Amino acid sequence: MSGSSTGTIFKLTTFGESHGKALGGIIEGCPAGIEIDIDLIQDELNRRRPGQSELVSARNENDQVEFLSGIFEGKSSGTPIGFTINNQDHNSKDYGHLKDTYRPSHADYTYEKKYGIRDYRGGGRSSARETVCRVVAGALAKQVLEKIGIAFSTYVVQIGSEILDSEDFYSYDLIESSLVRCPDSEHSKKMETLISEVKELGDTVGGVILGHIKGVPVGLGEPVFDKLHADLGKSMLSINAVKGVEFGSGFNAAKMKGSEHNDLFDSKGRTRTNFSGGIQGGISNGMPIIFRVAFKPVATVMMEQDSINKQGHNVVIKGKGRHDACVVPRAVPIVESMAAITLLDSYLRNQTTQL
Amino acid sequence: MSGSSTGTIFKLTTFGESHGKALGGIIEGCPAGIEIDIDLIQDELNRRRPGQSELVSARNENDQVEFLSGIFEGKSSGTPIGFTINNQDHNSKDYGHLKDTYRPSHADYTYEKKYGIRDYRGGGRSSARETVCRVVAGALAKQVLEKIGIAFSTYVVQIGSEILDSEDFYSYDLIESSLVRCPDSEHSKKMETLISEVKELGDTVGGVILGHIKGVPVGLGEPVFDKLHADLGKSMLSINAVKGVEFGSGFNAAKMKGSEHNDLFDSKGRTRTNFSGGIQGGISNGMPIIFRVAFKPVATVMMEQDSINKQGHNVVIKGKGRHDACVVPRAVPIVESMAAITLLDSYLRNQTTQL
Amino acid sequence: MSGSSTGTIFKLTTFGESHGKALGGIIEGCPAGIEIDIDLIQDELNRRRPGQSELVSARNENDQVEFLSGIFEGKSSGTPIGFTINNQDHNSKDYGHLKDTYRPSHADYTYEKKYGIRDYRGGGRSSARETVCRVVAGALAKQVLEKIGIAFSTYVVQIGSEILDSEDFYSYDLIESSLVRCPDSEHSKKMETLISEVKELGDTVGGVILGHIKGVPVGLGEPVFDKLHADLGKSMLSINAVKGVEFGSGFNAAKMKGSEHNDLFDSKGRTRTNFSGGIQGGISNGMPIIFRVAFKPVATVMMEQDSINKQGHNVVIKGKGRHDACVVPRAVPIVESMAAITLLDSYLRNQTTQL
Amino acid sequence: MSGSSTGTIFKLTTFGESHGKALGGIIEGCPAGIEIDIDLIQDELNRRRPGQSELVSARNENDQVEFLSGIFEGKSSGTPIGFTINNQDHNSKDYGHLKDTYRPSHADYTYEKKYGIRDYRGGGRSSARETVCRVVAGALAKQVLEKIGIAFSTYVVQIGSEILDSEDFYSYDLIESSLVRCPDSEHSKKMETLISEVKELGDTVGGVILGHIKGVPVGLGEPVFDKLHADLGKSMLSINAVKGVEFGSGFNAAKMKGSEHNDLFDSKGRTRTNFSGGIQGGISNGMPIIFRVAFKPVATVMMEQDSINKQGHNVVIKGKGRHDACVVPRAVPIVESMAAITLLDSYLRNQTTQL
Repeated sequence: MSGSSTGTIFKLTTFGESHGKALGGIIEGCPAGIEIDIDLIQDELNRRRPGQSELVSARNENDQVEFLSGIFEGKSSGTPIGFTINNQDHNSKDYGHLKDTYRPSHADYTYEKKYGIRDYRGGGRSSARETVCRVVAGALAKQVLEKIGIAFSTYVVQIGSEILDSEDFYSYDLIESSLVRCPDSEHSKKMETLISEVKELGDTVGGVILGHIKGVPVGLGEPVFDKLHADLGKSMLSINAVKGVEFGSGFNAAKMKGSEHNDLFDSKGRTRTNFSGGIQGGISNGMPIIFRVAFKPVATVMMEQDSINKQGHNVVIKGKGRHDACVVPRAVPIVESMAAITLLDSYLRNQTTQL
Repeated sequence: MSGSSTGTIFKLTTFGESHGKALGGIIEGCPAGIEIDIDLIQDELNRRRPGQSELVSARNENDQVEFLSGIFEGKSSGTPIGFTINNQDHNSKDYGHLKDTYRPSHADYTYEKKYGIRDYRGGGRSSARETVCRVVAGALAKQVLEKIGIAFSTYVVQIGSEILDSEDFYSYDLIESSLVRCPDSEHSKKMETLISEVKELGDTVGGVILGHIKGVPVGLGEPVFDKLHADLGKSMLSINAVKGVEFGSGFNAAKMKGSEHNDLFDSKGRTRTNFSGGIQGGISNGMPIIFRVAFKPVATVMMEQDSINKQGHNVVIKGKGRHDACVVPRAVPIVESMAAITLLDSYLRNQTTQL
Repeated sequence: MSGSSTGTIFKLTTFGESHGKALGGIIEGCPAGIEIDIDLIQDELNRRRPGQSELVSARNENDQVEFLSGIFEGKSSGTPIGFTINNQDHNSKDYGHLKDTYRPSHADYTYEKKYGIRDYRGGGRSSARETVCRVVAGALAKQVLEKIGIAFSTYVVQIGSEILDSEDFYSYDLIESSLVRCPDSEHSKKMETLISEVKELGDTVGGVILGHIKGVPVGLGEPVFDKLHADLGKSMLSINAVKGVEFGSGFNAAKMKGSEHNDLFDSKGRTRTNFSGGIQGGISNGMPIIFRVAFKPVATVMMEQDSINKQGHNVVIKGKGRHDACVVPRAVPIVESMAAITLLDSYLRNQTTQL
Repeated sequence: MSGSSTGTIFKLTTFGESHGKALGGIIEGCPAGIEIDIDLIQDELNRRRPGQSELVSARNENDQVEFLSGIFEGKSSGTPIGFTINNQDHNSKDYGHLKDTYRPSHADYTYEKKYGIRDYRGGGRSSARETVCRVVAGALAKQVLEKIGIAFSTYVVQIGSEILDSEDFYSYDLIESSLVRCPDSEHSKKMETLISEVKELGDTVGGVILGHIKGVPVGLGEPVFDKLHADLGKSMLSINAVKGVEFGSGFNAAKMKGSEHNDLFDSKGRTRTNFSGGIQGGISNGMPIIFRVAFKPVATVMMEQDSINKQGHNVVIKGKGRHDACVVPRAVPIVESMAAITLLDSYLRNQTTQL
């Protein structure tokens, strides 16, 4: 049973390999009659794209989305929205050297063992290139959520050991003004410097992204297995390179006492603190949803590494071509997209709770 | 759309409130012909039960599972396995004082707003009592997984600031020999002391549970949205009081360089390190699966706290009745159960990957 | 992947064998806050029960439903509704002679081959006794649908070659006044006579049930695979002994010309004829939904028949115990229940079509 | 919740409107490592295409499938198979006259009411053009099923009142040698004549297609709601213009006695008769699966008809452009495709029944 879908009512199913003809997807369950701004969707794709700065990439590829159905005269028609993003360099022969080699901490070995066959070109289906489809659906979801009053602030709070200690809601413009999508200029500069240094060495580094979602109505999330943070957490963990996720107080909660962790109400049902991260009992409580997502360093390093090939022989490999020393800044729109997809789905699911 | 099911092929659907007549569930997709030891299932329920020691609880309730279908002459028959666990004190009137009050960091407020109606007795559906059903299905799943060679070691690695720095595989007996289910006797004692102190104050404390699963075959997990750790992570986040989950290097990965984080292969396809936590590209790689789950401190404290009632008036509440100063030790079989349910489901899903 | 669930938002999952301890189910997605009349549900169970007349059965068993969760102070609470119906004679040893024998046109052979194990007592999971759970959920669904203005008229239009040529909406009382649930007294008598004659011979006979649903709002049903009649049709075909289903003109449509089959509109959007059976393009059009369901004769006959046993040897078997010469009248509440479950699910699904 | 998917493990999700840029779909769960003959898939698309003879159509459009992912070096790779079929005349302005008019027995009215918006060009999503995607997935499924030994014989048994009384397995070539896909030459000629006469009048006519599937292993189908014939039946009823479906004895069973309807075993577990249609208790029994699907006459007639517009005013409309007097012959590959998709899904589901 395939795992290429996310969501239940608002649902995205994707296809596509890194170096196949195209990637694409089908978005089901978008409410009918919503005006859709396709340029905004393309803008989000551009945010995800490599090549936005010297820092984060070395190739400029053009990810152009084409919508094939489900939008009529500028509005969602209630029918499935099919879309594709062509791969421009899909005939590239650059990957022949990987045909028989399993790169460390990549999915080469596991795909080969699971399927008995593997599209080795650029990681095939396991490539993070697959996330373009998530960004398309997420950008659409955000347009719907905006009508309900839900807004997102997603940014980098950690690169390596450089940490921004904040969970505030920052403006989109402020976040985008930073090369590393860290809204604090001082931290942003330190992170830039760190990435440059790592890149110089041919190495890579991990980081953490924080999501702050405001305007979420009370009541989203379905007990007991589809708690809102369980669904959001799964969405985050499904993104390439993610190793952990936490909500509100997160892992820090383990150290806390109940008397300090409890979020006391004010008379309007809001809470004075937000250790819950906007979710209680798996249901949104109207406070901002706060979560953090940890990314491992990219596995492809421009350094020699021991590895093995199909025959089990030792080989030495070294990354070549473009080099992303840190993908965390580029992952910001992906994290935001997955959050938006999940929230819109939760919102629609909640519509049937009462007649 | 309800969220009362977990799994796709091996699937558990549950029902039941804390103080209704009974809780129960339906287990679908258990392979036919498996000998089932019902006593072992009851044993796991007993592990989860409050009242196992002075330390972790103050009430001794008897959770007796009754199987109603799907098991014939001691074996799974391939049909749905229905079961119930009766609530013995379901007529208790102890909860009248909560009828109109929203307890801080509980789900009272969110349930009331979502459904417009709330079973206020003992938390109703939001009570952790619901997890008995997970333990039944998990104990069954473990019996199936044992035939495949998969084994679990799940234990407490942190209570408050007391931390055991280990991810080893410990025996079931060693873990169970500790009152707090921490397999290191020195740390165990410190944790016991800490919980006693907290209990004395009427307060509560959080913690972290680690899961180590060995014998997992290569190939489990379904790209791209149902990656094995995404499914496991969702399962963990669906457990009451969980605030975060991480795999392998987890949040620590954010600080690491690719050159140190990459798990280099040996010639048999195993890896020298296991920062990946046994999963690469969302698919198990044959190495132990390692994950950590963070629990917040229990919200019910035996201390006065400000809160509000339905009318929005300020009230002062104080927990009464039994008092769990730390539920983390009791959560060990729940974490293990959810891991087992998810793994068996992943195993069965993988059976259809090739003809 | 088990097939024990029907519906998506309003969803029933069932368990239970004919001679296990109990049958039961979980109803998810019932909107919260609905007053539920449990006596009405029990009444529907009684309609389905054998032993209602000399004609249709020879045993009087008592099917008592017990609700275990999801109903609080007389109203649905939005949480899963668990229920059980105990089997009173579940220790019966009457079925030993079937342990090694495959009865013709029963599911003995196919269950044994599929699962490698078979609960042979009374057909086990394949027994029509399983439909009690459908009636519980259907009776609940009808209570919700009644609030929306949807009403059902379900009755027998054919037993053997006795045919009532009508698709009118008859009252519940009129239908129930007939021993065979045929609302036309003349046809009812002929059908009763026919069943008596067949029973005398130890034989059985099939029939057809018609469903007429009025008050269905325009817009239910989800193109393209979950067309309203596709979902209704599947629900009907899932009932034991059903061999065919048709909507509106049905098989007769094959003989018709487009010029006579087209349902012309009146100025209010209603149609002058209703060959469409209330559904166009898979979506309800506000006209009555009309469908017919064909039942085969019961396979258990009180006559000697050739069969085989597990070893492939020829054996002669003969039905014993109670004898239902015709189950079609008893199937009326089952058909109505499945229609109600499917319609309520369709209604709730449609709530998310527009924001 | 959208209804654009069919299947659970082997699963097709489709998108596309009649006059949008393209139609397409995603096929999930195709077992990895299967050699795929794309030309055979294109052949099946050509079978479905209008314009194959003077008789059945008046336009020759070219439906060219393009595969975008999931097939690597000629084999299925286990990842989702994305595909598109471009609409060549999607800019056609021929449909302006339908913008405000609801055609009788079309889905114009129901789509408009359900979604509040309607792509009126050529029926939009409700057009039978959508079935191209089903044929692509069905042709692929047949290639997988062929390896298991499952073969299909699908043909026309009725057009208007012309009926072929047979349920034999006929060869593909024999069926294709008939312009109306009726394998009996005498009946084929009569059907051709009938269609010509109807076409002359500008009218349309319905019909019945029979499916005979051989080589199905024992054990496919999942009790109790996903019985094999329930799933097959839903698949058939989801095809445009289908009004009924029956299995084995079908509606005729209503007239039969149990003593004549029971399929007696031979010593090998096969049955002497096949009134069950190859399915007992919802599970395949190894005998041929036999079913019949009834199609209504096409609603578009070349004659003046009364109708209404959006404003509720009476208008007179008349079909123009191409005219399909009878789509039943063209529906043969669609019926066969839906059967193949459902059977392959059932086959894969059954793989997890036992360890």
